[in-house]
Amino acid sequence: MSSAAACIFCKIVKGDIPSFKLFESDKILAFLDINPLSRGHALVIPKHHGAKLTEIPDDQLSEILPVVKKLVVATGAENYNVLQNNGLIAHQEVDHVHFHMIPKPNEKEGMSIEWPQQKTDMDGLKMLFAEIKAKM
Amino acid sequence: MSSAAACIFCKIVKGDIPSFKLFESDKILAFLDINPLSRGHALVIPKHHGAKLTEIPDDQLSEILPVVKKLVVATGAENYNVLQNNGLIAHQEVDHVHFHMIPKPNEKEGMSIEWPQQKTDMDGLKMLFAEIKAKM
Repeated sequence: MSSAAACIFCKIVKGDIPSFKLFESDKILAFLDINPLSRGHALVIPKHHGAKLTEIPDDQLSEILPVVKKLVVATGAENYNVLQNNGLIAHQEVDHVHFHMIPKPNEKEGMSIEWPQQKTDMDGLKMLFAEIKAKM
Repeated sequence: MSSAAACIFCKIVKGDIPSFKLFESDKILAFLDINPLSRGHALVIPKHHGAKLTEIPDDQLSEILPVVKKLVVATGAENYNVLQNNGLIAHQEVDHVHFHMIPKPNEKEGMSIEWPQQKTDMDGLKMLFAEIKAKM
């Protein structure tokens, strides 16, 4: 849960806080991250206030990735990461859903990822699959 | 560039390689990652072959995030990262666009992120903004 009234991104949507707006529609806003990891680092947000992905209506979610694509083209990024974090432990810092488009021009700039891959456990996966599939 | 003929995800789409399919439509497929970072780690891919986000038609992109949302609900993940990598330097391992939904149940499992944030450079951002905005 989070409060829309206190939300910095809701204030940006309303225009109460200025931003470098790159794209705006009825449902979506895109703007530059002012603490970028690399040149061209930008954010795409649904205007609907919600802290996590599951709180955002599908009609707003549907518009996000085509806008991310526009950002990639406009920034000229060749290598880049698209990231959306949910929860403090998952590195979320603002409790309003936001998608990062982070150019990765070299090893030093942009985001770095640690990938603690687990071994393939086919029996475990089969059980998990049945459990999740039943809820889809 | 990448070849659809040799693409492991295209083979999964065709059914030539088995997978734990969680969702399928005309345009989209979702399945479990068999080398998960955490329990419930799953992938959502467009059926259209393309290595990077800019190669995927908008009508396929539009369907992806609502399916990611379904996965979050079905796995019961509370904290999670949604990630899509473009380019080897950006940690892309299969050259067919794929979105990871990676539950983050604790500090150890799931993905870890390094965030080498740069200082806010308002003058630099203003110039960059004008440059990108002109191309949107």
